Amino acid sequence: MVTSHLFTGFTQDSPLPLDSGASLYPVAISYETFGTLSATKDNVILICHALTGNSHVSGSPELPGWWDHLVGPKKAIDTNRFFVICSNVIGGCSGSTGPSSINPATGVPYGIQFPVITIGDMVRAQHALLTALEIPSLHAVIGGSMGGMQALEWAAMYPTYVKSVVAIACTARLSPQALAFDSVGRHAILSDPNWNNGFYYGLDIQPNRGLAIARMIGHITYLSEESMRLKFGRNLQQRSDYGYDFSTEFQVESYLQYQGDKFVNRFDANSYLYLTKAVNYFDLHKKYGSLDIAFQESQAHFLIISISSDWLYPPHQSKELVSTLMKLNKWVSYANLESPYGHDAFLIQNDQLSELSGSFV
Amino acid sequence: MVTSHLFTGFTQDSPLPLDSGASLYPVAISYETFGTLSATKDNVILICHALTGNSHVSGSPELPGWWDHLVGPKKAIDTNRFFVICSNVIGGCSGSTGPSSINPATGVPYGIQFPVITIGDMVRAQHALLTALEIPSLHAVIGGSMGGMQALEWAAMYPTYVKSVVAIACTARLSPQALAFDSVGRHAILSDPNWNNGFYYGLDIQPNRGLAIARMIGHITYLSEESMRLKFGRNLQQRSDYGYDFSTEFQVESYLQYQGDKFVNRFDANSYLYLTKAVNYFDLHKKYGSLDIAFQESQAHFLIISISSDWLYPPHQSKELVSTLMKLNKWVSYANLESPYGHDAFLIQNDQLSELSGSFV
Repeated sequence: MVTSHLFTGFTQDSPLPLDSGASLYPVAISYETFGTLSATKDNVILICHALTGNSHVSGSPELPGWWDHLVGPKKAIDTNRFFVICSNVIGGCSGSTGPSSINPATGVPYGIQFPVITIGDMVRAQHALLTALEIPSLHAVIGGSMGGMQALEWAAMYPTYVKSVVAIACTARLSPQALAFDSVGRHAILSDPNWNNGFYYGLDIQPNRGLAIARMIGHITYLSEESMRLKFGRNLQQRSDYGYDFSTEFQVESYLQYQGDKFVNRFDANSYLYLTKAVNYFDLHKKYGSLDIAFQESQAHFLIISISSDWLYPPHQSKELVSTLMKLNKWVSYANLESPYGHDAFLIQNDQLSELSGSFV
Repeated sequence: MVTSHLFTGFTQDSPLPLDSGASLYPVAISYETFGTLSATKDNVILICHALTGNSHVSGSPELPGWWDHLVGPKKAIDTNRFFVICSNVIGGCSGSTGPSSINPATGVPYGIQFPVITIGDMVRAQHALLTALEIPSLHAVIGGSMGGMQALEWAAMYPTYVKSVVAIACTARLSPQALAFDSVGRHAILSDPNWNNGFYYGLDIQPNRGLAIARMIGHITYLSEESMRLKFGRNLQQRSDYGYDFSTEFQVESYLQYQGDKFVNRFDANSYLYLTKAVNYFDLHKKYGSLDIAFQESQAHFLIISISSDWLYPPHQSKELVSTLMKLNKWVSYANLESPYGHDAFLIQNDQLSELSGSFV
């Protein structure tokens, strides 16, 4: 039982407050639910998606979900047992309010007049949704990558609301190297003349070149050196020798170009700017003063999972989280999954990931 | 004693043959010499520059060379003792024939009608220069990164001409991850509308956006996660808190943008395409059938140096070279320099690098 919904809340008189000091109204949140809410409303699991994800975490053969192998009837996150909610983040472009939405003040899409949002703002909006749905507490909040950041932020912002947190392939703050990759991706969009200062909605030309470059850079960081070697090596694409020209020759080039070209058809360049900015701003140390302070009030149980070959949010960053939680005497489990697939491994079928998260929730 | 020269060779009847099967004429090579050629011409060291380098390996306080700390009077590569030659590679944009040179067939700059060249072609051109200078043999050939590739190719192509080879922070072939970064950089240039299919010379607008993005991507790979952490951390640039806008905020962003902006004033976008392509094509395994075959005839002594934190051409790639050379019973020394500075460490003052290369030559 999958149902797609649109929640709309917040008004000019009572807008959503944002970490920047600005505020936002109205706020639409596109979400899907899976399974049945129990009479006591104690079986709710919130799943938070990653940078370019959406609310369709679980689906059907016709319309697959992005975590089908993990979420569904009799899966690790069993929708026969749990009432799963997955919502598109604010700032995104898959149904929730974001830069492509109409700005009530102007009657046209926000573009870069959309306020800069944070992971905390995303979570605050999700909390408003759950409050509107009269959900008294969360059995669990689960996410990978940017979804894991939201899960951690849930524990920090709503310390008694969340019973358990599963944070996969994430970090309490990005390294400067990870910041740098996002920054160059944004620079590619911002310097695309078709970006047009963010006002390209409805125009024939879109900042597709910049967005594709940003996506290509991102994809390199989502894989690992090993997975690229296993998947592509130095193999040439449909040719037996070098062509001595500037066409796409290596399989790895072809893959990246395909990923870039495909991405521009499904994602909004401004949303890419806003969501990477939210990820770059995410810093639990800075926001709360220290990781200790961030988690000291939390009553959640934690499952922290890192990926051995993830060099974007490397395992040592997860271990730092785990050390802090242990020091605070929180209930915490940790696993470093052995996988060659790099950061993206959290999206790939993995029996250990299923067993760990299934037995935890 | 520094002297700057221009060699011009090759004619329509006797062009420079290229690995692609094409050929090139005329070929100008801009080079500088340092020190004095001995009467027996046995004191010649050829230094090969990296991707965006030039012939000015050693200089003066007014016009510093890019390897001043290593090359000069009483330095590790002592120009009181050696006659050092450093030439700009063909395909480059610092005086030697490249895509910005006039195509004799059309009377206008080559643009992308310039033939795709390889590391082997660069070395063949350098050999022509040394032949014209009546240099009978090289005491040493030395280079880092793309310069190290040329040094290795020298040993393979001219096995009896080179007495010793110093190859620093290099590889016999790039990993698919390293290929991928170069490929996205090229894509940024090729998709810049101002690139104009390579014919932008003399126009007011240049493909600076694409070239700057390529350079920014490159710079991330030249540093290491650790050096970025030490140098920038998550520090903000001239502000105490987030600005909640899309300006350049983090120091690491500011650094990369500065590097990108600076680069477009000194480097030609087409040369960037050609030289990264040469680096991507470089594959001694493929060219010779195996590394063993590549080096089996070489009579050179080898010093192979890798950088511990170099993730672009990681130490295991140097170790593979060393293993092959040992298996072939060549005279080979190897050092993995402990440095946090990543790939770029080969350009940075380093006492160990100086001692190793100084005592080797």
